[in-house]
Amino acid sequence: MSERVSISQAAAALREADKILIMTHHYPDGDTLGSGVALCRALHKLGKTARVECSDPIPEKYDYIFANLQETAWFEPEFICAVDIADTRLLGEKLSVYADGVSLCIDHHGSNTLYAQKLLLIPEYAATTMIITEVIRALDVEIDREIATAVYTGIATDTGCFKYSNTTSYTLRMAADMLDYGVDSEMINRTMFDIKSRARIELERLALDNMRFYLGDRCAIMCIMTDMIEKSGADEDDMEGLAPLPRQIEGVWVGVTMREKRDGTFKVSVRTGSHADASAICVLLGGGGHVQAAGCMIDGPVDKAIETMLGAVGKVIGE
Amino acid sequence: MSERVSISQAAAALREADKILIMTHHYPDGDTLGSGVALCRALHKLGKTARVECSDPIPEKYDYIFANLQETAWFEPEFICAVDIADTRLLGEKLSVYADGVSLCIDHHGSNTLYAQKLLLIPEYAATTMIITEVIRALDVEIDREIATAVYTGIATDTGCFKYSNTTSYTLRMAADMLDYGVDSEMINRTMFDIKSRARIELERLALDNMRFYLGDRCAIMCIMTDMIEKSGADEDDMEGLAPLPRQIEGVWVGVTMREKRDGTFKVSVRTGSHADASAICVLLGGGGHVQAAGCMIDGPVDKAIETMLGAVGKVIGE
Repeated sequence: MSERVSISQAAAALREADKILIMTHHYPDGDTLGSGVALCRALHKLGKTARVECSDPIPEKYDYIFANLQETAWFEPEFICAVDIADTRLLGEKLSVYADGVSLCIDHHGSNTLYAQKLLLIPEYAATTMIITEVIRALDVEIDREIATAVYTGIATDTGCFKYSNTTSYTLRMAADMLDYGVDSEMINRTMFDIKSRARIELERLALDNMRFYLGDRCAIMCIMTDMIEKSGADEDDMEGLAPLPRQIEGVWVGVTMREKRDGTFKVSVRTGSHADASAICVLLGGGGHVQAAGCMIDGPVDKAIETMLGAVGKVIGE
Repeated sequence: MSERVSISQAAAALREADKILIMTHHYPDGDTLGSGVALCRALHKLGKTARVECSDPIPEKYDYIFANLQETAWFEPEFICAVDIADTRLLGEKLSVYADGVSLCIDHHGSNTLYAQKLLLIPEYAATTMIITEVIRALDVEIDREIATAVYTGIATDTGCFKYSNTTSYTLRMAADMLDYGVDSEMINRTMFDIKSRARIELERLALDNMRFYLGDRCAIMCIMTDMIEKSGADEDDMEGLAPLPRQIEGVWVGVTMREKRDGTFKVSVRTGSHADASAICVLLGGGGHVQAAGCMIDGPVDKAIETMLGAVGKVIGE
């Protein structure tokens, strides 16, 4: 069980520390990387030894966040800080050795499993980089364009460029502050939200070909089969962001993306609006998640998987 | 030639006026409708007779902007205000009779043709609704949730949900102010940016099938033929937002969307990033526009149209 700390207490703990290892979660995204790099840059400005680590390779598109980040020689960490990591299972292979020694966790996931000695948790914030910003301000470190770039990235990616309901007026104002530090938001937004690989476009085309409508067109199911992934040449990164597609279609209450794994089972992502509870659907199938976004695993083959899925969706939307 | 006026001068002119006709542009979008409705609601709050008109039918997705807008019986206008209209040619058929009698134009297009008696023009602002907000504040009208909803819609749509380079810190702060009035930004963002008709999805699929790469993959051309439009059942509204697709592909400098018209000519939209000038390409073909977004018309048939297009693109990107 963690001791809950405030912004100023977290800042005090960091001020006293040195040789700080900052851990980001595996399958890294803009918020964990933005949080890690923003904090690391701030600690460097205080003259501290600090570095950011991730169990997985960092996708190239995040390179700009790391630009000119001071290389730090290997050191035995004295203080370990986890950013945007709700559960030690998300540390990934390389960093899992530190699971029991996390000094401070800074996070915005309400589901945080309280694994760190100290926990700074603000679930009301759209992004962990917003909490990091307040910590940096409490450390009296001047925010510069590089820190602001990392912070903006976290806010933009975790809000879908300010599109999701987690975007509050404070979210927009903090993003505005970052633009005032000279952030190139157009480049970031383009990199994060616009550019798609040709493999991704090809996969999207194949997946749309394979979308079917059920339950009076209120449920759309898009199946992504292994042969489609191979044919398109898509990699893990290209798969990101496919799940919302079925839900975007007019009249659809429940959008389902079913991705075939190599062992023939299906990884299922369910997205809903205000008419249906995605979590309730996935719980029926042994999964879970949020009201508008949830997931589960289902056995194949595909026809049986669709039937299983429709059974659960029908029960929840009352068909 | 218009007399350029300030926010307070525009507010003064409106304060003295009554029986105010507010004109929005044809093929209406979120900014012109948001501007018109926000201003109209504010004028109603001052006890004035005012109504918003558009030459074209208003697409259903904008219904929420008009919710509870007071119906006003027909009146002969004594003061005519054009919002977000750069040129009287954009008035459309029904409103064109008022082209020579516009008392005040409130606009953010640098290309405004100065047709109104008074012109309040702020090209630095991402949306005309931002200027309208300042006018409403100068009129001492309290902004409420309904006005804020109209204003937010204009800002969100004209910035691509804060994605484009016209988004400044002031843009974000004004949007933040609107959220503080209780705007349901999630509903608006979902309605404006997420929901697609089935016809649109079908058209997108057919259009992606028809995308080809040229000039070392730096130019992508997507042809939308009349039979594809018919087959998908897409209408004018469904066509919106297709133009950026080719440009979103990794490595593409010049994205071209060519839409076949019934007479066999092609309406061409060119989108570029920082590597190429869309306007320079379209000027070569008798069109024009901005550096990153421009357009022109080309004669068919399709193979000849592509050849013509590639000639112009090659000249500009130096192939």
